Order: sequence, then structure tokens, then C-alpha cells
Amino acid sequence: MTRLLINNGTFVTMDDQLSKFQGWMAVEGSTIAGLGEGEAPDKEKELASEVMDGSGLLFMPGLVNTHGHAGMSLLRGLADDLALQDWLQNHMWPTEAKYTGDDVYWGSSLAAAEMIKSGTTTFVDMYDHMHRVAEVVEQSGLRASLTRGVIGLCPEDVQKAKLADAIQFAKDWHGQADGRVSVMISPHAPYTCPPDFILKFVEAAHDLDLPMHTHMSETIAEVEQNVRDYGFRPVEHLDRLGMFSRPTLVAHAVHLNDEEIALLAERNVAVSHNPVSNLKLASGVARVPELLKAGVTVSLGTDSAASNNNLDLFQEITLAALLHKGVSGDPTVIPAAEALRMGTVYGARSIGLGDTVGQLKAGMKADFIALSLTKPHFVPHTDYVSHLAYAARGSDVAHVWVNGKQLLRNGQLLTLDEEKILAEAERCFQRLRG
Amino acid sequence: MTRLLINNGTFVTMDDQLSKFQGWMAVEGSTIAGLGEGEAPDKEKELASEVMDGSGLLFMPGLVNTHGHAGMSLLRGLADDLALQDWLQNHMWPTEAKYTGDDVYWGSSLAAAEMIKSGTTTFVDMYDHMHRVAEVVEQSGLRASLTRGVIGLCPEDVQKAKLADAIQFAKDWHGQADGRVSVMISPHAPYTCPPDFILKFVEAAHDLDLPMHTHMSETIAEVEQNVRDYGFRPVEHLDRLGMFSRPTLVAHAVHLNDEEIALLAERNVAVSHNPVSNLKLASGVARVPELLKAGVTVSLGTDSAASNNNLDLFQEITLAALLHKGVSGDPTVIPAAEALRMGTVYGARSIGLGDTVGQLKAGMKADFIALSLTKPHFVPHTDYVSHLAYAARGSDVAHVWVNGKQLLRNGQLLTLDEEKILAEAERCFQRLRG
Repeated sequence: MTRLLINNGTFVTMDDQLSKFQGWMAVEGSTIAGLGEGEAPDKEKELASEVMDGSGLLFMPGLVNTHGHAGMSLLRGLADDLALQDWLQNHMWPTEAKYTGDDVYWGSSLAAAEMIKSGTTTFVDMYDHMHRVAEVVEQSGLRASLTRGVIGLCPEDVQKAKLADAIQFAKDWHGQADGRVSVMISPHAPYTCPPDFILKFVEAAHDLDLPMHTHMSETIAEVEQNVRDYGFRPVEHLDRLGMFSRPTLVAHAVHLNDEEIALLAERNVAVSHNPVSNLKLASGVARVPELLKAGVTVSLGTDSAASNNNLDLFQEITLAALLHKGVSGDPTVIPAAEALRMGTVYGARSIGLGDTVGQLKAGMKADFIALSLTKPHFVPHTDYVSHLAYAARGSDVAHVWVNGKQLLRNGQLLTLDEEKILAEAERCFQRLRG
Repeated sequence: MTRLLINNGTFVTMDDQLSKFQGWMAVEGSTIAGLGEGEAPDKEKELASEVMDGSGLLFMPGLVNTHGHAGMSLLRGLADDLALQDWLQNHMWPTEAKYTGDDVYWGSSLAAAEMIKSGTTTFVDMYDHMHRVAEVVEQSGLRASLTRGVIGLCPEDVQKAKLADAIQFAKDWHGQADGRVSVMISPHAPYTCPPDFILKFVEAAHDLDLPMHTHMSETIAEVEQNVRDYGFRPVEHLDRLGMFSRPTLVAHAVHLNDEEIALLAERNVAVSHNPVSNLKLASGVARVPELLKAGVTVSLGTDSAASNNNLDLFQEITLAALLHKGVSGDPTVIPAAEALRMGTVYGARSIGLGDTVGQLKAGMKADFIALSLTKPHFVPHTDYVSHLAYAARGSDVAHVWVNGKQLLRNGQLLTLDEEKILAEAERCFQRLRG
């Protein structure tokens, strides 16, 4: 088994002590074998089969993007500056109705290329034709939590077929690609799935012992509709349907009252905060400081490139650190370190991978990235945690490893053919638009 | 005189029609000689002394950063997650008190390097030791509107000396560096300058026929203090002191009531919106959609790297397009094109350069940038205006020209020694901190 020794690097481990040091890290196979301050011990030098000079590089855990729809990267810039329901119903859904598995494959490949290049090593994806997304995960070397997102506004037989597809996908792919693929069970949203249909997903999640993922309370309109149609706001509604008896990750959660925040904390429901998408679609600003204070695990998602319009998770980290200060009037909320945790360790925790990735720690999987520090916006070398949260961009990422395998070297993709992906994605889009 | 012909480029001109086309552009000396769709006319080919293949590149006007303090780049990451007055009084001002001209020179050089690399071609700078900033402008090739920002909380003789310094700087540097330097007159802010002192700046601006620049209404506290101390909110206060009888650019303008917005529009006062800094310091969210609706020229500024913490104006463009949608609940406010105008043409207009830069147009100065389009986040090729506002980052900028001279080629600085600047900036910071 190969054993890589990185010397002379700057490390931000994202462990509980938020350790930062100049030092070394050893990677054996898919696992972090050890790391420490200063020069590597002689034993490490003897064991190493490969040595890398980490000078001028900052090593940190790979970023975890906890909500997205990779295939929708084909729709980037197709329709902007519109309200969510107009955007969804008149632009996204009609174009997506023409999607083939091939479109999902190339759209997801485009997303994978962009995510690797900007430092994301694990992503959550909720979409259709999920076996094609899983193929992209397999080929790209990324880690992912994948789930067939089912919209239930259709006849019962179609509902049934979609549910069966979601279950089959989960069974086929859970633990595949050297363990890099995990799966979830996903009714798309309370406003797109009748309650009795949601119940069937909860049942399936119990049968298969899987976590759940859904969109929740993204807009005021859907919260009001939920109360009108079902008598409860979305959190209580989903709780009554038993969803929170499973480990659950909800995306958005913009419109919450105090009771809902308390219930999410009590049920240990994780929230994927998508600040760029929520602003762009004018959905509002999630109550993230209150959620964190209540003990809810809040992570970060880009949502799709159609409502963002890129997949640079560093932008979400920066915006999470900035936005809630300005809106709350309290400049101390979500300090730099907390925003970075949301993009790494909290992301891992929110999809059940808290002991696997999201930190640099001996025994954890070797999912990590290296940023080039020799750039004007990283000078002076005051505080790297601050620089990572406020000054860094995805384009600073020079190298990426997942499961011990290098996916990006000096900004070049090693597992994907970028030129071909850009051409095929453009071709798919031209057909969809035509 | 050299005449550069760029062929096969993608152009976003930022003219009134928001023209976008595949075509050519000719640059003679410091000026855009012509541009057009399709293949360049034979005459252009004959005239050209240099030809560039623009394939895969998007050409647009250079960005205009209308508020900053370049020398403060040395303080990036020194103190984060603090309130404005705490941050200013306990961290920034004590460290800045130790600043020498050398620190300002290297801090401004660091800022210049960062700005060029991220596509800014004109910047507004308000600081001390301004002749050292002007040196950086001269050497870097950037265009700038420079102004000695005077804090008047000091004895009368010190006030007098500072005012004299501001006037001398303005006289010495206006129109220098091949016309790339223009100047303004700046009392720092109504809360740091007594009214009779502000009057002297207004008088000087009239005498020298110069525009004015100041901080205004950044926080609620300073607005309240203004009412308490002087009986009026800042807009009426400055208007009564005659400031708006000069062309004026105010930075921040976060806390405005309807009457103040109307008065700013009536007096043709320009506003520099600094969304990142306003969020980071929890100052609040400026009423930009209302300002634009009232006809106020609103441009974008990074403020200093100490409250941002980078100088990437594309981030301000993106945030301007995103933030006001989410906060107002209206997803149609500040569409992509308007955000781009704020970063280019409105920026130029707000410092009296509206006929000089900010658009690609024959007869205007050749200040333009080229972004590399062969990146995943620019695919598919739906709408480049959308991509520039929502997906682009400063790191996409490959080439930069100011006044017809190339300052950046393939991401490499041509006029500044980046390695030396990073080292000297670090050295200056270590001394300041020590």
C-alpha cells in the first residue's frame, strides 16, 4: 500500500481544538495515518513510499456540500432574477422534463469538475436518473451521499414507480465505489408530496435503515400552504409523519419559528443552509445563529448551479460568515471558525460521516485539499482561519485528495476529462434548449 | 504608436444597449480605436501593429472600485468578528498610528497586485501618506482617484496641517501619471470632523474645482450621534455644510430615510455601496434598490481588506445582485446587468470618469480585462451577463489593460514584482505587530 508523507505544510485540521500548525501528514492507502507539528519523525520518513513538499500550501479537510442537484449545472444562467415558483414551474421543470440520463450524466460531470476544482470532496445530490450520478461519483473519485428526489404530484401508479426507483437506487448503490457512495431517501418536499406518500418514504427509510433528505420551508408561501392544506407548519407536519424518527437532513429551512427550531434541535435534525440560493431566489435569510445556538447541526449547500450560479463552497462559507452579521446587527455571530466548521465538520456530521471525514485526524479517511498560499489575498499571514473564511476562493485550491487518491494536481483534474466534459455539457444544453 | 487588434473575442461592452457579441476590438495607444461584431475589417488588419487571438476570452471594461484604503491591506485578518467602533478604535487605529510612508507604500502595492489580478482597473483610495499611494499608481499602471482622508478629532494646529497636506497632495497629483491619477477632497466622516472643519474642505474643493468623498451613515450609532450633536441626520448635515454643492461620492450610506434618498438624488450625490464590509462589520444593508430607483448613481467598493477581507470586486458585484433580493423579498431587484453596471459604468460615472472609462466604446480609454471562458463554471454558454454577475470570480481574469498598456498577462503581473511585494508586505506587518 502506498504511504504518502507531506512535509513542511501549513495545516488547519478543523478538529475540536481548531489546531493550526506547520508540520507533516502521512496518508496510507485511503486513510490519514498520522500528522503532527514540526518535522516528521524518522519512522514516518522510513515508512513513506512517496514524499511531497508542502511548502507554500495550506492543507485542510475537503469541503462538504450538503445540498445540490448536480445535473442542473446544464441550466446555469438559463433563467435569472425570477421568483422561486416562476423559476421552477416555467423554466426549470419544463426544461428538466426533457432530460435524459445522458443529460444528467454530463451535467453531473460538469458539476463534479467544478466541485473538485474548488475544493469540495463530498457532495449531497438529490435528483433523477441517480444511477448516472453514481457513475460520475465512481469515475470522478468524489465522495457523495446520493438520493432520488421524488416529486409526488402525479397519479398513484407513477408515484409507486418513482418510489420503487428510489428504493432500488438506494439498494444498488449504498456503500458502492469503495464505500464513497452512501444514500438517503427523499420525498422532494412537503409541498410536492402528499402526506400519505411521504409516509411511504419514511417506511422505506426504516426498512432500509437509511437517513432522509428533503427540501423544507424554503419560502413563506410553502409554509403558508402547508398550514392551509395540512393544518401544521412544515416542521410539525414532517414530525407527525415520522420523518424525524430517521436521521434527517433538511435543505433551506429559511422560515422557522422558535418552536420549530426547538423541535429540530430535539429531534437532532440537521439543516443544510444555502445562503446564495436563498438570496438569489429571494427566499429570505435562514435563522442560522438561532439554529446553531439551539444546538442544530447546520452545514452548507450550494443548491444547484441554476440558482447560485456556481458550486464554489468557499463562497457559501464566506457568505455564511458575512450575511448573518449584517442581518442580525451582531458582528460576532458565526465567526470565521464556525463558518469553516459548517463547510467541513458539520457537513460531514449532517450526513452521518462525522467519524469518517471533515477533519484531518489519524484514522479518518484522507479527504483533504491544499490551497496555494502565495497569493496577495493571503498576505499578511495573520490568521489562516480568517483567511480561509473571508479571503479564500475555490480557485485557490491547487490539490485535492479523496479516499487517499489525488483528484486534482496543480489545478488539473486527474480523473475527469475536463475538455470533453465542457464540450458535452454544452452539446446537451443546446439540445435541451432547441 | 502601437495599434493592437484583438480578433475572435467575446465582448460585453457595458454600453447603454448592453451589447454582447463575438468580434474584434482595436486599441491605439491609450484609446479604444474601434470594435465590432464578426471579423475585423480589412482596414483594421492593415493598421494593426500587433494582433491577439481573443478566442476563449471574454473582454469587458475593467472594474471600478469606488471605496477603499489600500494601505490597510497590511491589516487583513488582524481582527475579525468585532463591531465597527471596537474594530476601529481598539485594533485598526492603534496599529495604523504606527504606519510609516513605507507601510502605506507596501500595503498599497499589495492591494494593487490583488486588484489587478482580480480585474480592477480604477480604484478610489482615501488614506494618509497619499503621495506613496500615488507612487504605487504611477508604477503599477492602474488608474485611481486619490484623496487624503482627514480625521479632525485633534487640536486646531494639527487640523490645519492635515488640511494643508490634503490640499498639497491634490495640487501635486491631479492629472499626473499620464492622466491616470485624479484627486478628491475628503473630510473622513461627519462623526470624525467638526462642522467648521468640514466647511474648510468644502471651501478647498471649490477653490481647486475638485469633487469630494467621505464616509457617511455607515452605522445607526453615527446617525444618532449626528442628530444628537448637530441636530440633523448626516445627509441634511452635509447638505447644509455645502458639501453637495460639489460633485460628491459618499461611501456606505447604509442608514437612510426616504427624505435622505430623495435629497441625495436631487443633489446628484453618488453612493459607493460596500456590501461585504457592511455585512462583516454588521453595519446593516444599504437601501440600494430604493437608491437606484430614485436615480442615484450607486457603484461598488470593497472598503479595505481589513473589513472584507479581499479586494475582489466580482465578489461585490455578485453580492450586490444577491443580497438585496434576499433582504427585500423581491427576486427581480438588481438583476445581473445592473450589478455589472454598478461595478463598471456607474463606478466610472461616480468619480467623474463616465466619459473616460467603464465601457468598451471607440474613443474611450482602453481600460479593459479579459476573462478565461474555458472553465466549468462558465458552461453552458447561456448568458454571459448572468455568468459575469453570478458565476465569475476575480481569479477568472487572465489579462488586464489600463490606458492601453497591459498590466496582467496570463495571470502574471507585468508592472509589479509580486514576489517582492508579498515579502515586503509581510515584513511591514511583522514590524507593525511587534
